[in-house]
Amino acid sequence: MHKKYSIGIDFGTLSARAILIDNTSGEEIMSSIYGYQDAVMDRYLKNSDQRLPIDYALQNPMDYRDAVVALLKDISTNSGVDAEDIISIGLDFTACTILPVDKDMIPLCLDSKFADDPHAWVKLWKHHGAQKEADIINATAKQRGEDFLKYYGNTSSSEWMFAKVLETYRQSPQVYDAAYRFVEAGDWVVWALTGKETTSTCMAGYKAFWNEKDGYPGKDYLEAVEPGFSSILDKLTQKVMTVGERAGGLTTEMALATGLKADTSVAVSMIDAHAAMPVFNSLGLKNALMMAMGTSICHILISDTEVFAEGISGVVKDGIIPGYYGYEAGQAAVGDIYSWFIDNLASNECYKEASKRNISPHTVMDEKVKKLKPGQNGLIALDWWNGNRSMLNNSKLSGMLVGMTLGTTQEEIYRAIIESTAFGTRNIIEAMEKQGIKIENIYACGGLSRKSQVVMQIFADIIGKEITTVSVEQTTAFGAAMYGMVAAGRERGGYDSFEEMAEALKVTKAAVFTPDAENHRIYDKLFEYYLRLTEYFGVTNRDIMEDLKDIQDR
Amino acid sequence: MHKKYSIGIDFGTLSARAILIDNTSGEEIMSSIYGYQDAVMDRYLKNSDQRLPIDYALQNPMDYRDAVVALLKDISTNSGVDAEDIISIGLDFTACTILPVDKDMIPLCLDSKFADDPHAWVKLWKHHGAQKEADIINATAKQRGEDFLKYYGNTSSSEWMFAKVLETYRQSPQVYDAAYRFVEAGDWVVWALTGKETTSTCMAGYKAFWNEKDGYPGKDYLEAVEPGFSSILDKLTQKVMTVGERAGGLTTEMALATGLKADTSVAVSMIDAHAAMPVFNSLGLKNALMMAMGTSICHILISDTEVFAEGISGVVKDGIIPGYYGYEAGQAAVGDIYSWFIDNLASNECYKEASKRNISPHTVMDEKVKKLKPGQNGLIALDWWNGNRSMLNNSKLSGMLVGMTLGTTQEEIYRAIIESTAFGTRNIIEAMEKQGIKIENIYACGGLSRKSQVVMQIFADIIGKEITTVSVEQTTAFGAAMYGMVAAGRERGGYDSFEEMAEALKVTKAAVFTPDAENHRIYDKLFEYYLRLTEYFGVTNRDIMEDLKDIQDR
Repeated sequence: MHKKYSIGIDFGTLSARAILIDNTSGEEIMSSIYGYQDAVMDRYLKNSDQRLPIDYALQNPMDYRDAVVALLKDISTNSGVDAEDIISIGLDFTACTILPVDKDMIPLCLDSKFADDPHAWVKLWKHHGAQKEADIINATAKQRGEDFLKYYGNTSSSEWMFAKVLETYRQSPQVYDAAYRFVEAGDWVVWALTGKETTSTCMAGYKAFWNEKDGYPGKDYLEAVEPGFSSILDKLTQKVMTVGERAGGLTTEMALATGLKADTSVAVSMIDAHAAMPVFNSLGLKNALMMAMGTSICHILISDTEVFAEGISGVVKDGIIPGYYGYEAGQAAVGDIYSWFIDNLASNECYKEASKRNISPHTVMDEKVKKLKPGQNGLIALDWWNGNRSMLNNSKLSGMLVGMTLGTTQEEIYRAIIESTAFGTRNIIEAMEKQGIKIENIYACGGLSRKSQVVMQIFADIIGKEITTVSVEQTTAFGAAMYGMVAAGRERGGYDSFEEMAEALKVTKAAVFTPDAENHRIYDKLFEYYLRLTEYFGVTNRDIMEDLKDIQDR
Repeated sequence: MHKKYSIGIDFGTLSARAILIDNTSGEEIMSSIYGYQDAVMDRYLKNSDQRLPIDYALQNPMDYRDAVVALLKDISTNSGVDAEDIISIGLDFTACTILPVDKDMIPLCLDSKFADDPHAWVKLWKHHGAQKEADIINATAKQRGEDFLKYYGNTSSSEWMFAKVLETYRQSPQVYDAAYRFVEAGDWVVWALTGKETTSTCMAGYKAFWNEKDGYPGKDYLEAVEPGFSSILDKLTQKVMTVGERAGGLTTEMALATGLKADTSVAVSMIDAHAAMPVFNSLGLKNALMMAMGTSICHILISDTEVFAEGISGVVKDGIIPGYYGYEAGQAAVGDIYSWFIDNLASNECYKEASKRNISPHTVMDEKVKKLKPGQNGLIALDWWNGNRSMLNNSKLSGMLVGMTLGTTQEEIYRAIIESTAFGTRNIIEAMEKQGIKIENIYACGGLSRKSQVVMQIFADIIGKEITTVSVEQTTAFGAAMYGMVAAGRERGGYDSFEEMAEALKVTKAAVFTPDAENHRIYDKLFEYYLRLTEYFGVTNRDIMEDLKDIQDR
């Protein structure tokens, strides 16, 4: 039998990347990247000189279609692999990234009637125009004791589906009325490939208040949010499929456009961070926490227990791996804070040394940080430079650093910042454990996990558990491809289940970071201060950080 | 009648500076500086390879004698002024800087028997070997309800006379027993010039628990501190003279050595920061607060009211200006924190621009800071990088910064640091006012007050009062000379009183910094947060900063 191959496509904020992997060895055969022409529209709408409000972030859906065609064509043409042997496509997308479409699934922004209306375009995940709407959604749900909110740590984000659509409902009734559906961009791309309208437990569960038992929220609640708003229920995709299911096969038209075979299996779409989880499939997924470590950290946990835990972003049955409860939590900024420090406060000498040795200033600083012992910096920081997502769910919180003396060095501050992000993760982990969620393995992926051994060792020392990384570079695209393999099934050259795939497709461990007992003991003490300061600045006296931002805005 | 002139000598930590000024115009005729050969002995004793404990800071008294002879000789030789017309010498010294001497006032460290004993040398103001002794002194005084402690905000420092001598009493009985006197170095130099053993209300009042009513502390108390320690009372100078009094005339021997006239008037010694106060004599001293702004800030206030205020370092009748109560308070680090930031965290670009324009990086940063509005940085800091002296009197407190986001710039942080030091001063001022001490004028001197208009304007905006500076550069030496003029008296070409001097010798205002009402209003709000954070980190939860230092030390 010929070797079989699968394609994974990771749709990021500014570009999409596709990889082709060998279904058995996991070898990456080819990788291709495509940058969106219109990128993020956060100042002006395409072909318009009308200034957008400051918290807007929009995109052009045609960029996604152009990307997927170009990437698939590049692979079919240049990979050297016979299209016959490419059995499946899995994709992940930033979320909640939504657009309104007509009954033919054509984006409303392509209609000249709506081209000037920002609400007709794609609202990107980081579009922050709907905070007021999120507040109403949360307050109304709490007031009415709505059950669905418990799946989301009792609060929901302005970035999610209902807030973004309510914003359209209030500000652009014409777009709202013309919309046959509001769909996740990931689901829209799956439609573009297969002609099938689908969404996944992952997309609907984490971003659209959907759960297996009750579906979407009830009419009465939505009317209480805003009269007439229950009409949204007719504008959401009804077919919620389990992750790893086959949405459909590649249409003939798409097969012609890309050079792939018609009916190539396409999996239902995944949220980007969540899609990386199966990469650790062969190491064991049950009770495993994966940290996708980059500019921020997304924590994904697979469990056989359903707990409505405080401080998590969401828990969804079958939301990440079929048969398990998938939990999501996160820290809004991690690598972003490290880069903020390097960009704004790293010294002349650090840059000179980096330039002389032709390495990154991050690496220079890492080397200095490595020489310090836990507690030696005399500093504690709170890692809330971009607010606090999990635990406190407050975007108006900010950073804090305490303990500076005239002898404090920049590397001591940099280490305190790294430590604060690890304390943030420990706080999430311990909150989960306290609420009865078991965590047996910790995995890490993403740029940070590969780039900085110092960061990873500090995380291990602070968390007090082993952290394992694997030698897969494009973890998200790789994971997306794995959903495709399961969608295709054994008969088509894939796998019938994640368990079956775990036996056949094994990834190699890249590193295991083992906590140092003595360091962990010192960090236990420092973590107490982190928690006390969290209580003060994040709970009892949170008006300090909130007001500082308000004063700054005025 | 010939013009008359006076010499002021400012003995600092590493050098002494003398200036010659015209008694009527205040014109500086000449300035001369002398660096101490043995500087600060903080690692090894002179001619010894025995390592000193880490908190020791010692000096060689012969450096002071060499300095005073060289400086006076330089002036008499090179100023072009007839020695006949140089009528007086006033000097100020770092304090408490003490040494043990024999009955002829010869330093014990010059005796080969004691040359190897650190306690036989000068203990510099920043010698910090006596913290335990200070703790005992404070605890015993509180326990017994000793009256004297109220003059010092109910707590005393390890830097002061009784703690430093108790350290010698416990660790070197042989030096203690051989000491006929423990004297302030400033008083010892006055003795070297005049052959008279004196001390001043300033030295004894602020540093040796002396007050006009009760003298030094009582025997019973000192025996309770440590059995036998009441013997210190026989080892302290008994002749406490009021500031501005004439200690004596220059000895014939000193006249020969320096070229000045025998019997030239020498004033009793002053503490360095305190000596700058008379520079503002012609602008009005009553209810005037002077800030000596440099690496730290010393606050000196002249009042006709005696209040035993919390948070001050000391209040002494006649301690600074005869006829008034003089208050001292202080911030342990101010310019030092600015320099810490520039040295450790200012960017590459800042240094490049400074180098290109041939200006200091402080100036580059000042220009950027000036463009920011109050509150625009969204930050609040606590200015305790070197502990908190006045108000909390806790050297284990440290710095704190809150409000950082991914958009925070280095100049925003630098502005927050400047603002924090001004909040620190405002806190001291408001505490004084709340306790019934009037403040009508605020003056500033010292390097910072001349170098940074931005810093001065922020101080004015935050304090909410005008701040006046004068065009005298060597304010401390200038003030010291003025004490000499008053010591000499009108008959010898000086003045009989500060009031009389105020009429004749006028200084020119350099600048008046007027608070901006709108800025002050914004800072009123931010100051509330400064106070809340002060309460949290400095009072209710001060163990956080204290423990961070303890963990760091281990």
